Parts: sequence; structure tokens; C-alpha cells
Amino acid sequence: MRIYAASIAAYLAYAASSASAFSPSHLGGSSSSSIIGQRSVTTSTSNTALATASLNSSVDPAIAELYKRRPRPEYIPGKISDPDYVRIFDTTLRDGEQSPGATLTSSEKLEIARNLAKLGVDIIEAGFPIASPDDFNAVQQIANVVGREVFDDGYVPVIAGLSRANEKDIQRAWDAVKGAERPRVHTFIATSDIHMKSKLNKTPDEVVEIAVNAVTFAKSLGCNDIEFSPEDAGRSDPEFLYRVLGEVIKAGATTLNIPDTTGWNMPWEFGDLIKKLRDNVPGAENVVFSTHCQNDLGLATANSLSGALNGARQLECTINGIGERAGNASLEEVVMSLALKGDEQFEGGPGTGKLYTAVNPVYITPTSKMVSEYTGMKCQPHKAIVGANAFQHESGIHQDGMIKDKSTYEIMTPESIGLMRGESQSGAGIVLGKHSGRNAVGTRLRELGYDLDLDKLNAVFARFKEVAEKKKGGLDDDDLESLVSDQAGSVNELWRVTGLQSTTGMSGIPTATVKMMGPDGVERFVSATGTGPVDAVYKAIDQIMGVSVTLESYSMNAVNEGIEVSSCLSLL
Amino acid sequence: MRIYAASIAAYLAYAASSASAFSPSHLGGSSSSSIIGQRSVTTSTSNTALATASLNSSVDPAIAELYKRRPRPEYIPGKISDPDYVRIFDTTLRDGEQSPGATLTSSEKLEIARNLAKLGVDIIEAGFPIASPDDFNAVQQIANVVGREVFDDGYVPVIAGLSRANEKDIQRAWDAVKGAERPRVHTFIATSDIHMKSKLNKTPDEVVEIAVNAVTFAKSLGCNDIEFSPEDAGRSDPEFLYRVLGEVIKAGATTLNIPDTTGWNMPWEFGDLIKKLRDNVPGAENVVFSTHCQNDLGLATANSLSGALNGARQLECTINGIGERAGNASLEEVVMSLALKGDEQFEGGPGTGKLYTAVNPVYITPTSKMVSEYTGMKCQPHKAIVGANAFQHESGIHQDGMIKDKSTYEIMTPESIGLMRGESQSGAGIVLGKHSGRNAVGTRLRELGYDLDLDKLNAVFARFKEVAEKKKGGLDDDDLESLVSDQAGSVNELWRVTGLQSTTGMSGIPTATVKMMGPDGVERFVSATGTGPVDAVYKAIDQIMGVSVTLESYSMNAVNEGIEVSSCLSLL
Repeated sequence: MRIYAASIAAYLAYAASSASAFSPSHLGGSSSSSIIGQRSVTTSTSNTALATASLNSSVDPAIAELYKRRPRPEYIPGKISDPDYVRIFDTTLRDGEQSPGATLTSSEKLEIARNLAKLGVDIIEAGFPIASPDDFNAVQQIANVVGREVFDDGYVPVIAGLSRANEKDIQRAWDAVKGAERPRVHTFIATSDIHMKSKLNKTPDEVVEIAVNAVTFAKSLGCNDIEFSPEDAGRSDPEFLYRVLGEVIKAGATTLNIPDTTGWNMPWEFGDLIKKLRDNVPGAENVVFSTHCQNDLGLATANSLSGALNGARQLECTINGIGERAGNASLEEVVMSLALKGDEQFEGGPGTGKLYTAVNPVYITPTSKMVSEYTGMKCQPHKAIVGANAFQHESGIHQDGMIKDKSTYEIMTPESIGLMRGESQSGAGIVLGKHSGRNAVGTRLRELGYDLDLDKLNAVFARFKEVAEKKKGGLDDDDLESLVSDQAGSVNELWRVTGLQSTTGMSGIPTATVKMMGPDGVERFVSATGTGPVDAVYKAIDQIMGVSVTLESYSMNAVNEGIEVSSCLSLL
Repeated sequence: MRIYAASIAAYLAYAASSASAFSPSHLGGSSSSSIIGQRSVTTSTSNTALATASLNSSVDPAIAELYKRRPRPEYIPGKISDPDYVRIFDTTLRDGEQSPGATLTSSEKLEIARNLAKLGVDIIEAGFPIASPDDFNAVQQIANVVGREVFDDGYVPVIAGLSRANEKDIQRAWDAVKGAERPRVHTFIATSDIHMKSKLNKTPDEVVEIAVNAVTFAKSLGCNDIEFSPEDAGRSDPEFLYRVLGEVIKAGATTLNIPDTTGWNMPWEFGDLIKKLRDNVPGAENVVFSTHCQNDLGLATANSLSGALNGARQLECTINGIGERAGNASLEEVVMSLALKGDEQFEGGPGTGKLYTAVNPVYITPTSKMVSEYTGMKCQPHKAIVGANAFQHESGIHQDGMIKDKSTYEIMTPESIGLMRGESQSGAGIVLGKHSGRNAVGTRLRELGYDLDLDKLNAVFARFKEVAEKKKGGLDDDDLESLVSDQAGSVNELWRVTGLQSTTGMSGIPTATVKMMGPDGVERFVSATGTGPVDAVYKAIDQIMGVSVTLESYSMNAVNEGIEVSSCLSLL
């Protein structure tokens, strides 16, 4: 275990600098072409949790580009004044919370909803109010708090509650959301043969009647923003969908959401379904079509985008793509695909084909981290956009390219999604490992202050290759420096843990003893107790170093070697 | 911590039964319509690691369906006799190993390669031989061992080695693979403007010359199976691709691989590129087109399938989708998409449009677990097909559907990919949590032997809802049973850990003391030492229970509550 004093200092310096950085605009009409704007919220919202999402004022042109977004059209249920605008419907708190094991508390849900509003999603599906009293309370609280915080540009998220197609469910959903400025009831019933027969035990005629009654009842409550979903639409008979959807439009539905509930569709198949529905459902021109794609074959994002290509103007998704089974379309993948490709790859549907959303991508990383932490659903290292490796480069060829020009292997900057490129690693997300070339090793050593002549660099590089071949997880700065030390005799020592012993169990007080060598070469040791063995260890380190550090997060690094576990301590 | 004695017994019973189960056929011509076949290998291959992949002889019809695959056409470089057949090219050992931190040892690579052969992938890219002596040795060993194990139906995987477009690299790659029955050299050079200018500092004319010389040199070595990749093809000028690809075909390239190196393409954009290349590259009819899609926007699988739709007949992918940054197309997603939808959704390219591969999906789960373990790249719970939650159902509505008919929410069976449905959880992958309904709770209790009358069930269910609301990770069988105990006074106790203390550190011997209450109500305790604190704990448990158990895997369950960590011990 090592303490990266340098990283702590860098982080503190960063945190200080970002306090004076601007808050990105939420794109009220006049500020849309400016990258520097101010936004305040009519009610007070804490921004502290999002300090890391702010940007330094020296903004990369690629990031600035992402801020040149068009203003968000006024919200009208069932209609979008700009046919190129795509609404983002986040269901992290409903379908996402249906991830096995991912229960959220009400206060966690509220915090996530606040972040979703900062992201600027158009609709937040806050839960399934009939499911339990806690679910009801959480949805109600979000409606009454986040659903009433109107931003300067007029934006306030729609708050939706899910309900089965019966009066009791719908009444409960409406009661939960009606406190919001823009409440929405979302009701659904399955329309595929297999679901109607095996699960509902209903005839198609009965299903149509239930659907119409549900929408009619929601409307009778005073709700004018009604979403209807034919569950398992991806496996339903299109002719039956035309009929049931046509009837619910007549009854007052304003958004028709088309779920590929089992993740069964190919992208072109799902896009074709959306097109068929737009062409054949009576009254289709008076509603907004929406996608809800599950990820069982890994195609949820592609299917959602194919839906948009074919005219869907609401995309349902979740942060990190969590949800039942293999989850949903990932908000970050959908949003960044539209941010990067919306201008050139979406012709064919309504409008000019230059699609856009109003999501502010710099809030992606902090929101992703929050959802991951609260749900316990950790992203895999290779998760697109928000995975730990998404902006990391391992092979020598890639590292060489990144040092020469970052756009060789990056289609977006990490800063654009609120991930600050580390001070270390050449700012190029480089992990030095067995595939790294001489250029990457030399560049990093120069950054660390070692200006080696060619012979020395060659000697260090040869030794580097030997070590890298055997060392999983790559070589960090300390390892690199010790390679130079071996060659050149120079030393650049930081605090180093030289001894560590900890005791824990089901009873008794977790206790740790830590011995550390300081930069002065003097060894100190101290013992401490804590709420757990890790807590005890860092408390002891704290006492030795004399710096007041708090444990921000503790995670077991999955990339480890056999029984030896490498753990990462982030210290704030 | 609890010891699931029942699960161990069930596992042992399963392992015993599967020893007598058949080995799935690799589809030699005559056995293609039979689900029961035998295959032996000319050299001896250990099958023990894959015992869990075998099937019980009482095969589900849905699984049987997946075995009704057509025979694999004879391997000819650059030509596939059946235009509907799609080759699967696995690059787990090359691009997958480029995942930051995922270094593999030679013996791990060999084991993975053996599993890839059992899966039946057409081509194994075993590494990048010039990168290091260890890489060379690993590729050579795989070529000489796995590349020579010819299966009864004539199948033996092609072994490919990667090389930059220069003679030294190509010589090294050829030397590494030439021992295989079917060796392939894969060479590449970047063709996008940004890569040619910023990284290579070459003109387009120079790049064409280098590419042609590289292929010519590979051919001069006696290699007749040459793959060429224009790196960053997804951002290259199509007109330039027509030229460079036409020239390398003349020089002897047999497979043209089209990489979307930065994950930049939308599915329809990438499919269109493949179609354009097939239509415009001189000599296109004499080669096999291939896809290599990175996952930066979460679209790698969709892009690969869109490539197949447009005539690509080799798809490059990795197990679990690992690779540089956000990784590659996932083999399991690509293969299962083609297995489930290949017959009906791929018209438009060459052939009848009924696409198929020869991959045997029951080896997906064991291979996925092996790659995950050896690389340390853990899949997220919601990873499609191989994630821990991929066959789990949380909401009450879904659980109710699964109990009535599994196909309501499952498009493939877990058994079809080699994942045995647990004895527990109703065989329906149900996690009982706050969204679960009375039907799911009642069904599970009946399976556990509790036949409650309606009043008792209602009382248990009410209590269940209260507990589930607060308990993250859902309720397991023991929790359920204690709910019944609370209501009915009945007890069904297993071994239970009542005390535990462990000590570990940088020096000293990890030691644990464990106290356990047996089913007889007698408490025993014992202390033991181990290679680590967990090892010590299970050694102590071992001694108390008197059953010789070995630790198969130890993982920290990410779904936990605050500082309390729930750990799962799988005991074999």
C-alpha cells in the first residue's frame, strides 16, 4: 500500500481552482452559443456534491463545442415545437431501481433526482408509487421538491409515476406526482400474445378495453400528460399495436412509449417498428413516440438510437444502463451519441434530421458515480463513457498516438463528461504496461522530472519491459521511479507504509498498527481503532502523517493478481 | 456470514450428475440435427474445467433448438462456401489483453485458447508477437498446441498473430503462428487522415505502398491466410479505402478487416460502409470482409451485427467485450444475437440471409468466468448475457410472469449459455426484494417446505414487505425462513457462524478464530492459519464442519449497505 501524497495535493489544488470556475449554463435561449453562463435556481439547491463537474475556465475547444447546443423547446405534453429535439426520459429511479439488489432509500432517490435535474433530463420517472408506502413517499417528495425547482430558462423536469392499468394504481401514481409543476402518469399493459395469454390471461379485446379505461381514468383525475406503454411491444403483433395505440390516443394519451421489454429486437427491426407505428397508428401525429429498450442482447443503446432515427422523440434510459436483468439503454451512451453524431446521422425521420437533446454532459460523471455508489451496481472497467478504462490507453501504438494527438484515439474528451484528466499519466489516460513503448515511458519520466539521456532511457526501458511483463495492473509512478533509481542511484521517496497489522471480527474493536517511513527517512508507528479494519488503518496513517484526511471511498480493485489484492484508497 | 450447506450439497449432486451427461457436439456434418453427439479430439484435452458446461440429458426444447445448427463449412482463407456462414474471430488474447491492467500469463492464455476452441470460434487471435518475448512465446505455444488439435469434424481454429505493416513485425508474427495447422498473419496500418498525419506522418501514397509491401512480404514467407486492417477505417475516406484495399487484395490479402477503431460509427453508418466497400473495392468478391468494432458509444455489438447484415462474414469480438478503453464487441452478444435472430433479421447481404455461426453457446458461461478471473476485468451485474443479473428478475410483475411462463421475460434460457439455473429461487432467477409479490414469496416458501395457509402467508408477506423495504440486496432463503419462524415458531437451522475474529498484516501469519453453531445446537470453535485472512477463516470453518471444502472463489459483493460488506463464498 502506498499513499499518493502528490495526488492528494493535486486534488486539493484542483478542488480549490474549481470553486472559482463557472457553472455551465442550462441553455436558456440567449446563452446557447456562449460557453460561459450563469444559472440560478428559484429554490435553493446544493451544488457542493457536484463541484467536480465544474470546468476550469481554460476550456478545450472540443468541450466548448459540446456547449453550442440549441435552446430547449418549451414543454408541451404530446407535442414538441422543434421536430429535431429529442426528450430524454430517465428511469434510473424506477426501472433502474428494479435491478436485483439495488434498493435505494428515499433520501438517496431525492439526491439522484436533483442530479438528474442538473443533467437536464426532460422527464424523471421517480418510481412506482403503488409498490410500497416508501415508493409512494419517495415519488411524492421528488415531485414536491425537484418537480418544483424551476430553472431560470424555464426548465423544470416532468415527474412521472408508473402504474399498472387499473384505477387504484393510477390514483396512487397521480397522488404521488400531482404536486410537481409538470406531473405525468405512466400506465402500461402487455400486448404481446405470450404476455396476454400466459401472464394476464386476457383476450386482446379485453386488453384494449383495460388500456382505454386506464387512460380515461387518468385524464378524469385532471392529468393532461399521460404516457401509455404496450409492454413487450417488441414481440407484439404490429396490427394489434395500431389498434390499441389508436384507441389510447383517442382516450387522451400524449406519449406512446414502445418497450422492447425482453431486449429481443435488432436495431433495424426496432427502428422499423417505430416507423410503422408512426405511419399506421390513427392519430400518431398528435403524440410523441418514445423508446424503452432493454439490453438482453447488448443492443439497448443502438435500438434507442435507431428509434430516434425513425422518429421517436423521447428516449427512455437509465444512468449506467442499470435495470431489470441486463438493464436499459444507458443515458450517457444515448446522450453522447446524439451529442457527437446527432448533426449528421439521423436523417429520415421528422424534422431536418439534426437531432439534439438538452442534457448537459459535464454532469454525467458525478451522476454516474452517485448512482453507482447508492445502488451498489458498479460499472465494469470497460463500460462505455463512464467505465474506469473508458479514457485509458494501454497499447504502445495507442499511447504513442495519444501523446502526438489525443483525437487519434478519442472521439470525445473526458472533460466533456465531467471527468477531469489526471495531472499524472501525461494527461493522455495512459497506463504504462507491457504494451507501452519507449516514447510513453520517456514522456512520463520527463513529467516526473527525470531527464534521462538516450542510453539511460534505453536501460530503464529494457528493465521496464521485464518488470511490466510480470506485473499485473501496469506500473505506476513509484514503480517507474524505482526503475530509474535502480539505474541511476537517485531517490525520490514519499511516505511509504513499511509495516501494517490489523485485527477485526464479529465482536471486538477493529484495531490497526501502521509503521511508515517518512520522506526524511525516519520510521514512525502508531496504532488506532476504527469502525472497521480499513478505517482503523487510515486513522493510524492520518495520525502519522499529521494531515487530516478523510476516507472518501474504498474499493477493492478488481484487477489483481491471485490472492494478492490491490486496494485503492481515495483520500480527500 | 452464513454457510449454505444446502447449496453445497446441491452443487455436489449436480457435479456428480453432470459427469454422466453428454458432451455437446461440435457439429460434424452428420450430427448437426441431433442434440446428442460425441466428439473426441486427436490430442488429449482436459475437460474437467468445463464440467459445468455439460448439459443434463433432460434437455429443455429451447436449448435443443440452439443445437440444431448447420455444419461448419470447410475452412478456406478468403472464401466461405456457404454465403450464410459467419466466422467468429476472437481477439480476447490480443485486443482483450490490451485492457488497461489485464495482463495474462502464457499459461492463462493457453487455457483461454483451449476454451475458445471448445466454444468453436473460427479464428483465435493469440497475441502481438513483436510486443515482447513473452507475447511471442504465448502465441507460439497456442499455435503449436491449440492450433494443432483437430476435432473429429475437421475443425481446428485458425491461429492469428498481429503485426504492424513492417517486415520485422510480420516475420515475428509468422514465426509465432506457423506451427499451427491454419496459421494467419494479421497486419495493419492506419488510413484515416488524422492517423496518417498526426501519428504516422505519412502521405496516403506512402501508406498504400507500406500496406502492399507488408502483404507481399507476408505472402513471400509462405503465408496464404493474410488479414489486412486499415486502422481507424470508421473515420477514413471511403474513396481512399477502396484504393488501399484493392491494392492489398492484389498483393494477396484474403480477409479485409474494417475496424471502427474509436467506436465512432452509428450502426447504420458502419453497415453502409461495409456495403460500400463490398460494392466498390476492386476484387472484393475474392475476400472475406470482417468487422472490428470498439465500444466507445456502447454500439460495438450493434455495429458488428449491422456489418453482418451488410455482408461482413467475419466478426471480431472478445469474451465479455473487454479491450482497449470501452472494449470490443462482446462475443456472447454477437453470437447469441445471431443464434436467436440470424434466421429472420439478416436479409440483404450475400446468401439467403439466414445467418449462422458454429459457436457452441453452452461454453459461453465457463469461458466468460475464466476470462473474467484471469484478466481481473469483472463484468458489471447488468452485463448482457454473462452478468450476474442477466437472468434475474426483481419486480413483482416480472416475477409473477416468470412463475407462470419463463418466456414472458426470457428470450433465451440460462442453460443454453451454460449457466445452470439454481435449484433455489424457483428456477426462475427470482430475487425476492421489495418489489416482489405474494405469489413469488409463497412459491419460494413452498419450495422450502413451508405450506402456509392463506392467513399465515398474508402475515409473513406483510412482514416480508416491511423487511424488504429496508434490506438492500433482497431476502435470501434464510431470511425468508426466519420470517416464517417469527410467525409460526418453527425452526430450520443450518450451520451458523456465531463468532469470528481474524488478524492479518504485512508481516505475520494470517490467523482466524471461528465459532459456529451446528444444526444440533452445539457451538464449536477452532482457530486456523491461512495464506490470507479469508483463507484462514474458511480453513477454520472446514475443520469445524468436518467437510473437506476448497475455496473456489471469493468476491466482495458490490451490492452492500454502507460500511457493512456482504461477501459471497462459493465453496466447491
